[in-house]
Amino acid sequence: MMRALRLARKGLFTTGFNPRVGCVLVKDGHCIGEGWHHRCGQPHAEILAIENAETDVHDATAYVTLEPCSHVGRTGPCVDALIGAGVAQVVIAMIDPNPKVGGQGVKKLEEAGIKVRVGLLENEARRLNPGFVSRMEQQRPYVRCKIAMSLDGQTALEGGQSQWITGTESRMDVHRLRARHTAILTGAGTVRHDNPRLTVRLPDDIDFEPPIRIVVKGKKTLNDESHIFNTDAPTWVVDAVDDVHEIPGCERHIHCAASKGRVDLEAMLRLLADHEINELMIEAGPTLNGALLEAGLVDEVVIYQAVKILGEQRRTPWAGMTPVRNLQDAVTMCLEDIRQVGTDIRMTFKPREGLS
Amino acid sequence: MMRALRLARKGLFTTGFNPRVGCVLVKDGHCIGEGWHHRCGQPHAEILAIENAETDVHDATAYVTLEPCSHVGRTGPCVDALIGAGVAQVVIAMIDPNPKVGGQGVKKLEEAGIKVRVGLLENEARRLNPGFVSRMEQQRPYVRCKIAMSLDGQTALEGGQSQWITGTESRMDVHRLRARHTAILTGAGTVRHDNPRLTVRLPDDIDFEPPIRIVVKGKKTLNDESHIFNTDAPTWVVDAVDDVHEIPGCERHIHCAASKGRVDLEAMLRLLADHEINELMIEAGPTLNGALLEAGLVDEVVIYQAVKILGEQRRTPWAGMTPVRNLQDAVTMCLEDIRQVGTDIRMTFKPREGLS
Repeated sequence: MMRALRLARKGLFTTGFNPRVGCVLVKDGHCIGEGWHHRCGQPHAEILAIENAETDVHDATAYVTLEPCSHVGRTGPCVDALIGAGVAQVVIAMIDPNPKVGGQGVKKLEEAGIKVRVGLLENEARRLNPGFVSRMEQQRPYVRCKIAMSLDGQTALEGGQSQWITGTESRMDVHRLRARHTAILTGAGTVRHDNPRLTVRLPDDIDFEPPIRIVVKGKKTLNDESHIFNTDAPTWVVDAVDDVHEIPGCERHIHCAASKGRVDLEAMLRLLADHEINELMIEAGPTLNGALLEAGLVDEVVIYQAVKILGEQRRTPWAGMTPVRNLQDAVTMCLEDIRQVGTDIRMTFKPREGLS
Repeated sequence: MMRALRLARKGLFTTGFNPRVGCVLVKDGHCIGEGWHHRCGQPHAEILAIENAETDVHDATAYVTLEPCSHVGRTGPCVDALIGAGVAQVVIAMIDPNPKVGGQGVKKLEEAGIKVRVGLLENEARRLNPGFVSRMEQQRPYVRCKIAMSLDGQTALEGGQSQWITGTESRMDVHRLRARHTAILTGAGTVRHDNPRLTVRLPDDIDFEPPIRIVVKGKKTLNDESHIFNTDAPTWVVDAVDDVHEIPGCERHIHCAASKGRVDLEAMLRLLADHEINELMIEAGPTLNGALLEAGLVDEVVIYQAVKILGEQRRTPWAGMTPVRNLQDAVTMCLEDIRQVGTDIRMTFKPREGLS
């Protein structure tokens, strides 16, 4: 199963709307075939493993990181393929979290007389697909908020200069981080002031599915000449008002419920889940960052901290949230990972369980 | 020598104005005696090692972390004791950095026919006494600035609440950090607003020399009922004006040159070095923190970062410095150490070499 998880990880940058899945076929103690899901619309891991098998699959054990599908989606059901190939046993790391289908694959396999075991390295399998799991279980994407700041918590200079507080290695790391997301979300203010491209720039030999760029639009119109509307990746706009203004380069205009005159963030995330966004990266300014954090809608925070002191610039990353008035009201996080990236420090946090 | 360095470290909290020194006597491949300097006025490491020796010291090799003294200070010269004991060889980690005495001990030993080697684990020996070395080489204490802040760089709530952003373990760690300093320096503003005690509170079985508390006084008078003037540790006041106001509980009132109406920080550090302050800890507000950093007078920054988000409180740690206008003017640091302390993160930085 470790091998199947490693195979699944190969799809980290490419599976898009689909979960990352790996499959290994074992017979007489030897791996006879393996596969992983590459892209939406392409064969599933199980199918590839069977196709790639170097000997007869009959009586083999299949290790698969996610319950094989039993319904006809973009490709045929993997359950039928496994039954057809005559495997004796299927070991599954996790049940499909989609409540509509969860368990059906197992049931169908068992009905065909195949021995099924579930739960081997389940936590690892869940961590492989936080977005897919969150979408199925919470009806919203997994929300990862990226912050770049100085040692004293400043995200930009007062004059506006924010590129580049962190170093080259951090920026490369951000491109890798972007690549695993189905979409990257930002605010109209950031588009106006920083005019970011929000594309993935990685060496040519690295394959990735370009993440969709999503702009949360406020009352002001967006400048259609902003980099975000270039053709490097699809761009969607989320809006709380019916805006007749058509933006060239905007692939999808999503109308969302409003809350206090702004886009209702919880409603927006539900809509994005409906549009099959798994992992959503936030690269926004203090207003949107603060609002998402305050609403308890952030699952993970990744901070790239430059080991520089800038002095007070009044550009703190969550300035948009209501400042805490009592220390016990602070948003408390849990450190998941910390490492050096070039001359910077990268820290990964999750909201502490039981609080949010 | 490793053992001698470890012994010297036992004096970390107690040697006060003196350097930490360890000594090991080795004969026929066995350690026959060892000693370390405990406190100002008490015997030096070499004397204790000779006294504690379990067999005849004659022909032994002495490993000592700092060049033995050749002058009569608070105790007799160690060089004479080593010669008198008849050691055959002395291995020294580092020469006494005091330019007035450096090398004299070696010279005297060699004149007595004793073989001398210098430089074994020299870097480690220097790191043991950053304050003593800085005082001798730069005529100022080693300045270590301690900051406690939230993940978003806030040191307090707007309302003033700053106790306690960090957790219990961090506070215990701060007491251990304080204990190694000859003095702890703060500003009059912090005394007025936070009324800290700035004492070392450690379990009863831990011996330490209470660090001197130093207040940099501005134009306003100090309230002599502040905790800092209690009897738990000596307190000094540094002043740029001749203040006739005598403060009960103030042990020493230091008059210092002024710069732009405030205490000249560089002059103050020279005076503190004259008063034999080795390691100086800064526990101050944004004004003093910023001024020291801007003047290039900070040798080390220790940040206790609580994994909490407070939102913008306009309480950043170095707000007192002129905010950087170009990113290339940022004070760039180098990460020396990073670890978890309870639920907080402790990071140690030094200004990057070549910049300051």
